[in-house]
Amino acid sequence: MVDRAVQDYYTDDFAHCYGCGRLNRDGLHVQTRWDGNETVARFTPRSYHVAVPGFVYGGLIASLFDCHGIGTAAAAAERAAGRAPGDAAAPRFVTAALRVDYLKPTPLGPELEVRATVKETTPRKIVIQATLSAAGIVTARGEVVAVAMPPSMATPAARS
Amino acid sequence: MVDRAVQDYYTDDFAHCYGCGRLNRDGLHVQTRWDGNETVARFTPRSYHVAVPGFVYGGLIASLFDCHGIGTAAAAAERAAGRAPGDAAAPRFVTAALRVDYLKPTPLGPELEVRATVKETTPRKIVIQATLSAAGIVTARGEVVAVAMPPSMATPAARS
Repeated sequence: MVDRAVQDYYTDDFAHCYGCGRLNRDGLHVQTRWDGNETVARFTPRSYHVAVPGFVYGGLIASLFDCHGIGTAAAAAERAAGRAPGDAAAPRFVTAALRVDYLKPTPLGPELEVRATVKETTPRKIVIQATLSAAGIVTARGEVVAVAMPPSMATPAARS
Repeated sequence: MVDRAVQDYYTDDFAHCYGCGRLNRDGLHVQTRWDGNETVARFTPRSYHVAVPGFVYGGLIASLFDCHGIGTAAAAAERAAGRAPGDAAAPRFVTAALRVDYLKPTPLGPELEVRATVKETTPRKIVIQATLSAAGIVTARGEVVAVAMPPSMATPAARS
């Protein structure tokens, strides 16, 4: 079931995310899939996702790490429970902290590849480490601290 | 000259940024202004900048910290040189590292306020600390390490 993206199995109320929600018409639609013991997401920036001409906007890179990190946490929790993406609704994590190191300028044009692994799992959090590469060259590193979605984000009264 | 935004004085070739470039038609147009010894940027997310319904997408928050942090570094370098925004073309910094701590969910709807100060200045970098608040409540903290734009991003041959 390697070809299933974890975001395809988020519950509907978790599927509106601008970065990865399948129900967000204006969003980026990041998709996280297993590739062995790593996860991978691929994304081709749009022409307007520019920092300075010729290079990718850093906030987009942060967004890719964010959603792929959360997707990886969900996929890892699934796997730890003995399930593959699609066997059940994916667990819902949110980002407690995000760190991005921009190692070198990322060229705008090629498809970007984000790869992630689980660095640490505790009862309270899953820490994900990731790299972003363009044309085979790693240009940024990211770390995401994922925690279970707090009840305050899941109560209907809090929703618009 | 408090009402001048530093991004209005980036050189044209630095004004295409998706987050803050005045020449990017599809971008966010973040604007950084002095307010005493702090800088401030205000931004009202669009309806699709959603994480889960009712709350702001974390990648957007990272983007606001990124561009406002870089704008603050430019404004601080201007001020250190005895200039106000608009007295000359703004200096060009890029992000070496970005850290965001998401303290609590950020409600989607209210205008967001990002405030930043300079934490550290060395010949090689300017470190910016920032908070993001919604309706007066701080919901995220950010830190940006800004460095002078490397020559590899400024050479015409590297541009698309």
